[in-house]
Formats: sequence, structure tokens, C-alpha cells
Amino acid sequence: MSNIVKEVLSANEEYVKKFDGKGNLSMPPQKRFAILTCMDARLVPSKFAGLAEGDAHVIRNAGGRASDDVIRSLVISYKLLGTREWFVIHHSDCGMETFNNEIIANLLQSSLKTAKIDENGWSDPGNGNGTADGKFVEWLTIKNQKQSVLEDVQRIRNNSMVPNNIPIYGYIYDCKTGKLLEVSEATEAGKVE
Amino acid sequence: MSNIVKEVLSANEEYVKKFDGKGNLSMPPQKRFAILTCMDARLVPSKFAGLAEGDAHVIRNAGGRASDDVIRSLVISYKLLGTREWFVIHHSDCGMETFNNEIIANLLQSSLKTAKIDENGWSDPGNGNGTADGKFVEWLTIKNQKQSVLEDVQRIRNNSMVPNNIPIYGYIYDCKTGKLLEVSEATEAGKVE
Repeated sequence: MSNIVKEVLSANEEYVKKFDGKGNLSMPPQKRFAILTCMDARLVPSKFAGLAEGDAHVIRNAGGRASDDVIRSLVISYKLLGTREWFVIHHSDCGMETFNNEIIANLLQSSLKTAKIDENGWSDPGNGNGTADGKFVEWLTIKNQKQSVLEDVQRIRNNSMVPNNIPIYGYIYDCKTGKLLEVSEATEAGKVE
Repeated sequence: MSNIVKEVLSANEEYVKKFDGKGNLSMPPQKRFAILTCMDARLVPSKFAGLAEGDAHVIRNAGGRASDDVIRSLVISYKLLGTREWFVIHHSDCGMETFNNEIIANLLQSSLKTAKIDENGWSDPGNGNGTADGKFVEWLTIKNQKQSVLEDVQRIRNNSMVPNNIPIYGYIYDCKTGKLLEVSEATEAGKVE
């Protein structure tokens, strides 16, 4: 068992000891909203948005992008589990701003030896072989955070499975301060008609 | 501004006040691992797995399923940001066990008036019109949690962009107790060769 697994299971043991009445929480989010945000390790939605267990759905991927998989999750969130307001939250200093489709496709093809992480002294695990498959993926990188929040809110708003009367709010989380900064153009684009 | 937005921003204000030195955290996850889990409101990975800001990537969607968007995120996670171990964590009492592709497609088509959430006395927002688009989506519902964890670990393991030497661990989070229960067949399928 790796040290990481040991750490996670040990932290989980402590959590279980203080779990108390949380075993009776019901499945639908009590506060009836959902947050889409980035997988970034510095973002802890339960802390920066004040969520207790049972409050809200949290959907996360690289960039907090409104992919088809996110639309799938949001439609399930409102349709079967009752959420009625959604937040799209990207953040400053995002990894998705540091590369583009071509860069990652080339990294994956060149037997994985030249990854950016080498700057930190980390070895790249590689798999011995490069793969061209990265060229067939849209990586959803970001050039401008305000623009990406706006685009993602618009994409969700315009999806045929998303009802008109769910407001969608656009924000950027500032990694330097922990503060949520509204992207007013995005919230405007996501408003209820 | 809705009450929910007010609540979130007010909680965020409190968080900012105690943010301290967290503004200096670097982009790559310090503990070099990633968790894939469900968007379910009862699951708070930072608490059940003991994660502080900066520790680990957290990827979440409906079911914690290994969709293409998750593969995109995991490949970025290891290739550009240095994670070296991954957890796939589904959970008991998951909403994804309560319907199937046909049920949600029909709900979306029948002008959204008969959703399951009506049992809780909630009105369905609908949008006045049904849509057939739900029939074209694979919703990734779950029949058996152990089986879905195994399948998802296998799908990630077998992806050509995933290196052979990243171990993938399979777990089910028990919503009644908060405990992480290993799915040993999945961890076995995700082991380093």
C-alpha cells in the first residue's frame, strides 16, 4: 500500500469517527444548486463557497469547462435531483492557460520525455511509447479566463436540454486571495429570460 | 441577487479573511495524486480524504464515471501537473442507480412535467417544450457500484494516453458511515504491471 493510500485511509478513519448524523442526509442537494469548477488542487469548493455535506452538487474537470460530460451531469442535477441555480467558476493561474492542443499532443507523441513538470525535478513516468491519440482530443485549453467563463455559460444556456429558468452565474476564483470575482458578462448571458 | 448567491458570497468573504498564506501555493498538486468521484452533494472529498488546499486534483461528474472528459482531465493531471496515483471513488445510494437512458430521455421529451423530484413536492421548471435530444446522450447510469468502479478503472487503465506505471485504486464511499471501502477487483485491475 502506497504512502498516499495510507494517508487517505487514515484521514478517512478520522472523518468516520466524527461522521455523526450525516448518514441520514438525503440524496438531492438541500440548497438546490450546483457548482462547475476546475480540478485544480488549490480550489476547495466546500471551503470557498461554504458547503456542508448535502448542500450542493460539485462538478469538476480540467479547467471547469462546459464539456458534453458536464452538460450530462448538470441535466441529471436539475432533472432528477432538483438543482435550480448553477455557478461556472474558473480561476486565476490555471494550468489550462499554459499549453494548447498542439503542445500536449506533441508531448504525448514524443514518448513522454519532455514534459513541463521536469522543471520541478520530477521524472515523467512515460510508458515507453509515444501515442498519436492526443491529436484526436480537444483539450479545452484556455486563453482568457473571462472569455472562457462567458463561453461556457453560453454553451450551457443554449443547450436544448437546459431549461430557460435556471440562472447560470459566472465567476473567477482568485488563487492569490481566495476571492470569487463575478464575470458580469457571463452572469448576464446566463440570466433567466 | 438570489439568496443562494448571497449565501455563497458571504461564505466566500469569511474564507478570504482567513486565507493567510494559501495565496502562495503552487499549481501542481503537492501530494501528486488525483481523485475521480461523483458530484453528489453528500461527498466532500477534502473532508473524507483529508485534503488541504494544494494537495490533490479532484475531478467530479454524475456518477464519478470515467468519461472521455475525465480521461482528458487525468491525462492533463499527470502529464502537465505531475500526479502519479489515481483514485476512482463511486458511492452508495447514488442517483445514477435510480434511472436509465430511456427514463431520462422520456422525462426530457415529455415537456419535463413528470420528474421524480415531484415526490419531494418540488415543481419541475421545465421549459415549456420537451426535447428528443436526451435520446442521443449516453447518461452513464449505474446498475451495480462494484461493477461500475471496476469498469471505470479498466477504462482508464486501457487508455492509450495513460502510462502503465500510474496505479489506479477503486473505492466505494459509504454515505451511511463516511467510510471508503476498497473494491479490490478494481484496484487489482488498476495496478502497475
